[in-house]
Amino acid sequence: MPPRPLPTDAEVRSWIRDRRNWGRWGKDDELGAMNLVTPARRVAASRLVKSGRSVSLSRPFPKEPSANNAYPAQHYMKTLPRGNGGFAADYYGIFYHGVASTHIDALCHTWDDDAMWNGRDPKKEIGFDGATFGSIEHWADGIITRGVMLDVPRHRGTTHVTQDAPVHGWELDDILDKRNIKLEPGDAICVYSGRDAWQAANPDLSYGRPFGGGVQHRPGLHISCLPFLRDHDVSMLVWDMLDHLPIGYDVAWAVHACLFAYGVALLDNALLEPLAKACVEESRDEFMLVVAPLRVVGGTGSPANPLAVF
Amino acid sequence: MPPRPLPTDAEVRSWIRDRRNWGRWGKDDELGAMNLVTPARRVAASRLVKSGRSVSLSRPFPKEPSANNAYPAQHYMKTLPRGNGGFAADYYGIFYHGVASTHIDALCHTWDDDAMWNGRDPKKEIGFDGATFGSIEHWADGIITRGVMLDVPRHRGTTHVTQDAPVHGWELDDILDKRNIKLEPGDAICVYSGRDAWQAANPDLSYGRPFGGGVQHRPGLHISCLPFLRDHDVSMLVWDMLDHLPIGYDVAWAVHACLFAYGVALLDNALLEPLAKACVEESRDEFMLVVAPLRVVGGTGSPANPLAVF
Amino acid sequence: MPPRPLPTDAEVRSWIRDRRNWGRWGKDDELGAMNLVTPARRVAASRLVKSGRSVSLSRPFPKEPSANNAYPAQHYMKTLPRGNGGFAADYYGIFYHGVASTHIDALCHTWDDDAMWNGRDPKKEIGFDGATFGSIEHWADGIITRGVMLDVPRHRGTTHVTQDAPVHGWELDDILDKRNIKLEPGDAICVYSGRDAWQAANPDLSYGRPFGGGVQHRPGLHISCLPFLRDHDVSMLVWDMLDHLPIGYDVAWAVHACLFAYGVALLDNALLEPLAKACVEESRDEFMLVVAPLRVVGGTGSPANPLAVF
Amino acid sequence: MPPRPLPTDAEVRSWIRDRRNWGRWGKDDELGAMNLVTPARRVAASRLVKSGRSVSLSRPFPKEPSANNAYPAQHYMKTLPRGNGGFAADYYGIFYHGVASTHIDALCHTWDDDAMWNGRDPKKEIGFDGATFGSIEHWADGIITRGVMLDVPRHRGTTHVTQDAPVHGWELDDILDKRNIKLEPGDAICVYSGRDAWQAANPDLSYGRPFGGGVQHRPGLHISCLPFLRDHDVSMLVWDMLDHLPIGYDVAWAVHACLFAYGVALLDNALLEPLAKACVEESRDEFMLVVAPLRVVGGTGSPANPLAVF
Repeated sequence: MPPRPLPTDAEVRSWIRDRRNWGRWGKDDELGAMNLVTPARRVAASRLVKSGRSVSLSRPFPKEPSANNAYPAQHYMKTLPRGNGGFAADYYGIFYHGVASTHIDALCHTWDDDAMWNGRDPKKEIGFDGATFGSIEHWADGIITRGVMLDVPRHRGTTHVTQDAPVHGWELDDILDKRNIKLEPGDAICVYSGRDAWQAANPDLSYGRPFGGGVQHRPGLHISCLPFLRDHDVSMLVWDMLDHLPIGYDVAWAVHACLFAYGVALLDNALLEPLAKACVEESRDEFMLVVAPLRVVGGTGSPANPLAVF
Repeated sequence: MPPRPLPTDAEVRSWIRDRRNWGRWGKDDELGAMNLVTPARRVAASRLVKSGRSVSLSRPFPKEPSANNAYPAQHYMKTLPRGNGGFAADYYGIFYHGVASTHIDALCHTWDDDAMWNGRDPKKEIGFDGATFGSIEHWADGIITRGVMLDVPRHRGTTHVTQDAPVHGWELDDILDKRNIKLEPGDAICVYSGRDAWQAANPDLSYGRPFGGGVQHRPGLHISCLPFLRDHDVSMLVWDMLDHLPIGYDVAWAVHACLFAYGVALLDNALLEPLAKACVEESRDEFMLVVAPLRVVGGTGSPANPLAVF
Repeated sequence: MPPRPLPTDAEVRSWIRDRRNWGRWGKDDELGAMNLVTPARRVAASRLVKSGRSVSLSRPFPKEPSANNAYPAQHYMKTLPRGNGGFAADYYGIFYHGVASTHIDALCHTWDDDAMWNGRDPKKEIGFDGATFGSIEHWADGIITRGVMLDVPRHRGTTHVTQDAPVHGWELDDILDKRNIKLEPGDAICVYSGRDAWQAANPDLSYGRPFGGGVQHRPGLHISCLPFLRDHDVSMLVWDMLDHLPIGYDVAWAVHACLFAYGVALLDNALLEPLAKACVEESRDEFMLVVAPLRVVGGTGSPANPLAVF
Repeated sequence: MPPRPLPTDAEVRSWIRDRRNWGRWGKDDELGAMNLVTPARRVAASRLVKSGRSVSLSRPFPKEPSANNAYPAQHYMKTLPRGNGGFAADYYGIFYHGVASTHIDALCHTWDDDAMWNGRDPKKEIGFDGATFGSIEHWADGIITRGVMLDVPRHRGTTHVTQDAPVHGWELDDILDKRNIKLEPGDAICVYSGRDAWQAANPDLSYGRPFGGGVQHRPGLHISCLPFLRDHDVSMLVWDMLDHLPIGYDVAWAVHACLFAYGVALLDNALLEPLAKACVEESRDEFMLVVAPLRVVGGTGSPANPLAVF
């Protein structure tokens, strides 16, 4: 595969500013690309269930501190007597954005110097009690759609994506061609980059910025994946590696711009190695995908346990 | 419907002790009745998706203090700059057992003076870092099964169950007969009791014990529902009202005994009024039900957003 | 004592607007009336230690939910092995403002429609990471000054202040006269109103607003205490009952206005019954008072354990 | 100063087992060496206040993640309207043991294979709701005693203690001799080791164990300081560096053994550089020290802001 030229600054800017979906579903729309997941798409997704195998795409609740987990999740226990028996109850606390927790980003999560989703002003919409626009409860009825695996290491014949070879948008198209997959509007794509294999091969690096400043480096998806999401009317990007850093362009956000520009959901830090294996074993690239975010009014996202059902 | 005699103490004891499922799926089993949700049952559940309508069974994340919400859930916000843009992130904290939060109970959640699920000793299995047996991560691949609505107010021609008329097991059988529903092993049942209508009709009462001691009263499901769960090999009970209190028998737990005795999951404080309405509108009693608990190793359950898909 | 006329609206407004201490210690001052606690005042306070008796003015960390404690403080435990021994560690979490926790308010805690302390704009100074003006760390070197007991029930010959007879500013002056106490600039006053006796006599009432809206009623200090604080150059008001409610005037804050208008610290929900008893037993009205707020940069106050040393 | 021989295993064991204070103040005593801080000692301490200068020994509430701060403290904000004004309130959450937070350890915090303070069994005394023996509320009336600075870098003519030269007990005696200080029972000692200077000189090291296993190295106080604490009947050790690691002996705890063996309080991670400077400037080695732990029933310690008053 010959190398392709990188996009220019103007092209990148155009992806974010000229191709954005603001107003596409009404100027007050808070569903974004989830509008593309119609009841008919849910029915179609359910028909992909054939063997009944179910796979969790969630990492364990990240309790342990590490360079990848600057704010460990809290799990505290109580036991209490009840008559001549008793019960155990526990407290969960999590600052879930970052690189440790499998979670979904709501449309309000990011913005650039122009605005957040649908042109709203974050100064007006983000307050101490949460967001008043584009928050997670608008997806409370769940995301049930076709999930499609795009297995980059398998395509490359390697175990994981590396810092010097980010995943470009055209490579995702190549995978579609090679695997003979046709995306349809409202599909969720699962881009597997082999994050756990990368971590095992690089035990002294951390995927997240450990602490402090400086320029951060990490392998992942190149900003050129943005037009791929837009062209194919993807509803949600499920990924294990996130945006390739440094971005290489003077923009606040790379692939994360799809939240505010396109209304596309992001499901960060998914555990995709088991899913990739299941796809090979089931000889399939597609499955029913279900994400059920917690119904937090004003929330910027939610920890989640996405399920792929074959 | 003529009144039926209440069970004797010996009968109640027999339901819990003699009919329990310990060892049924092996003495080290941590899945319980979820073993009944086979891949084939998942496939069958997916075929129930016909109109593609999806309904959340989750109440909003309970942030507001009230007599029903002694430990309000925490939702705290941060915003941070990123280049010339920024992002919002938030913290969720919740002590989710109780009557405010829609959540699933893991098998380790309750026990009586004999033992917890499968005969394990809670003193050995419950520690400061969580439970080492019957904890929620064993259901991390999700619960995807047929959900069946049992609408008690509709059956009674009222709006809600009252303190003086708890839901007995035989009434659930009556509903099955009347609606011509046949339960199959592994089904999840959604017992709607009209909790929100009850609360609206009794604004000065709280469904949960507000504070302090004394005998608690609340409408709900009578302990006679236990053999119903066992007879029909139910995998999960989804309910809006919980155990009728006072229990009326000298046992630590009423319907909540199904956790440790039968290995049956409980999904407490579900929001079932919208589901009941959808069932009427869709002229259906069954649907695909999906629950995706957070993957918390050692957790006693999880806040959840159950989805019913028609 | 003949009843005295209540202040007019204009008088109340004048106390807050005309007599405020803005600029008194410089326009950028963040210490407020704590400027009056000079090193010499600390030395003088230390000389009040004679018997060496020390009394805590802190209520227990409020873990239990109640109508007075809508957001219970969190206390969660862990134990961990260490070699052939081990250790226990715990987590404390508290949303400490309200009526349950003994805590100090920083100057940034309250504001009216004009501004916060020293004329600052709360919209500019209060952010997601805390306050950037008048926050608690400015008092991190501690408050060590003369404390003076003003025992209202003792003065009245009752056990506690009641809803129909709030504590007026002139009554505090009466107590000074009767007890032959002369306040000096920088003194902290401990106004004991018998809150625990009131609660015991009114078990069905809650001192705080339990839940929901409506007009709140509670006994406490009348807004006429404001000029008392200003006239005597008090540095800190330590109280068990708080502002009498309803206020009776169209202002956002009653006695709590002393924070933004005068720069006077408030130590809310102190446990003053043991201190009142100690004062009687020691035949004293004064003592060394020490408050050591946690050094939280940007904090709006701090849970605290104030110490009175005789 | 000639090097002195290190203690033998038998000597170390004897310090912990033979010289312990169990039963010294009664078998049910929960105050420990704080019994030595009598009212007379408090009076004497207050007489040390001469210039009125007050110095906080607390580090800032540790919100920022770092290799030294694996569990960052939480600080979350809310603002709420009140009439035509408003207020700001915040949440503090902290798992305060470790090396980041200035805090006091209660007697229940540590144990070895024999027992915790006064011979109690941690399995019986430590539960999900806290400790039932030796917990922090027993010191709720505060610690007010003479504080004595032992400035190791000043004694050594360096800026900080290093890994290869831990602080031995005999060096503390040398400092007493050199500075002509006589300790009295109930004194608190502040052992300054220059931790912040060490960190500045070693920016790539972390004082705490960052993450994961292995043998930990850090400069600090050698286990030979134990008999110093016992010989001088110290009530509390205030330190910036903690136990020198590795310990070098087969015991669970080094200096931290003073909690369970002697009943001596520990005030960990104090900020002592400003105090050391103040001592030089005031030409004094002693001051009134005040610690006011939060009144947490069952707590294993408390975040604290210790005050030194000259």
